[in-house]
Amino acid sequence: MRGWIADTAGYASPVALGSVMRALAAGYVVESRHPNYAAGDAVTGWFGWQDFANVGPEAVVRKIEETDLPLSLSLGVLGINGVTALLALERIGAPKAGETVLVSTAAGAVGSAVGQIAKILGCRAVGIAGGPEKKQSCLEDFQYDAAFDYRADDLESGIASSCPDGVNVYFDNTAGPISDIAHRHLAIGARIVICGTASVASWADWPSGPRVERHLLVKRARMEGFIIFDHMDAYPDAVTRLANWVRDGKLHYREDILTGIEACPDALAGLYRGENMGKRLVKL
Amino acid sequence: MRGWIADTAGYASPVALGSVMRALAAGYVVESRHPNYAAGDAVTGWFGWQDFANVGPEAVVRKIEETDLPLSLSLGVLGINGVTALLALERIGAPKAGETVLVSTAAGAVGSAVGQIAKILGCRAVGIAGGPEKKQSCLEDFQYDAAFDYRADDLESGIASSCPDGVNVYFDNTAGPISDIAHRHLAIGARIVICGTASVASWADWPSGPRVERHLLVKRARMEGFIIFDHMDAYPDAVTRLANWVRDGKLHYREDILTGIEACPDALAGLYRGENMGKRLVKL
Repeated sequence: MRGWIADTAGYASPVALGSVMRALAAGYVVESRHPNYAAGDAVTGWFGWQDFANVGPEAVVRKIEETDLPLSLSLGVLGINGVTALLALERIGAPKAGETVLVSTAAGAVGSAVGQIAKILGCRAVGIAGGPEKKQSCLEDFQYDAAFDYRADDLESGIASSCPDGVNVYFDNTAGPISDIAHRHLAIGARIVICGTASVASWADWPSGPRVERHLLVKRARMEGFIIFDHMDAYPDAVTRLANWVRDGKLHYREDILTGIEACPDALAGLYRGENMGKRLVKL
Repeated sequence: MRGWIADTAGYASPVALGSVMRALAAGYVVESRHPNYAAGDAVTGWFGWQDFANVGPEAVVRKIEETDLPLSLSLGVLGINGVTALLALERIGAPKAGETVLVSTAAGAVGSAVGQIAKILGCRAVGIAGGPEKKQSCLEDFQYDAAFDYRADDLESGIASSCPDGVNVYFDNTAGPISDIAHRHLAIGARIVICGTASVASWADWPSGPRVERHLLVKRARMEGFIIFDHMDAYPDAVTRLANWVRDGKLHYREDILTGIEACPDALAGLYRGENMGKRLVKL
């Protein structure tokens, strides 16, 4: 969303001034003239920051089939975040059992799923999060083998001691100083998943950092960007797998739910202040 | 070699002070007690900066079979440079016919082979080199579709106009400001081959540059390091393919041969001054 309101195109076109803010939402059909949808159906899709959405079927991402689970999960662990975690980890991170997966924004909506999926796939998971509460949440809620608070802990020695054979997969949601440290601990053949850039609120004034080329060369490592919209073919199957892990108690989630449309702008800004605990949602 | 004489290990251990400088060389067997080698055989291997090498068979990379071609080619286009160009381009760059391949140090031993192999594989090749002579050499000797002198030309507009659909493969041997410009012109799904870091003479004082994460994310691009020593299984077959292209006149090379062991140190230093035209060799 932060990218969409910049005035330059990223992977999606900018949201025009004066138009409804683009957002995924989940809700129930009130009225439908489309044969695939009936009043009362649970759906998730591109409905925007608004109380009611008048949209065509192209705006619907998915009719929600997991009605035994909370509707809100379709926006988090069973939605774009969980599916991103699973597909980006498998398709780019390509973790093998026994490997070590390091995750930034480890307690966040994507990161917390990455850490747990890494464990489900037989890997060790090490998390980096901001603040003692999120570090605690990594260890207690999300089953990380080790976790660090980048504001208080010495990341350099923490990663070194918790990843003695190096980092096989670095799942990065930050693109900032945390990554600069992580890059110094890559194992040979490491894969770096570039999934988000949460530590950079704006690229209008493009930030610099230590060059990565030498790390990638010496470690024969790979760094690759992932955007879920390229992988929508795999979305339904991914949701099915994630939902089964949630039902089996193997995949936990936290939600951070604000109320009222007036909460929306600051809900987004607050992510960059690191104040959310779990998937931030606004209930309308 | 520049990496090997730093006091920190890179992909290979440092050369110890007082020992013979590590180097690939080509020559003839003078005397042998090993059944695979007889006096007069042409061989290439890890013989170092010395007039005569007393080594075991583990130092030999290959008995040279292409005796119809100059022995020196085993150190360039039919050696580590040509094989690196071919395998790094195919295995990491994965170019498809019709795509655009951008090459830095485009007139160098690796780069000049990359550009020509890209053409052989049906791609467009755009080269970046330093100085008017090397730019000329790209166009006349190495069949690039377009070439730029990064010291004199405006690279930003040059790449934009010569790669109107973006850069599908960026084959990088520099890791410096040239790359920063190239990264701004990636096509969606681009592959960046990190093959060398010629623009950085020392990483002891680690250089910074514009962050790459946003480019990789927005373009779903991949950046990956390549070191030939991981791919030695494919070496003999690669030499055979390269030699056939040389014989068919499809793959050209230039050599820059100095004489005498006393020329060795400055021959290496001069690479960083950009003074060589083609593969730099020292004849003993």
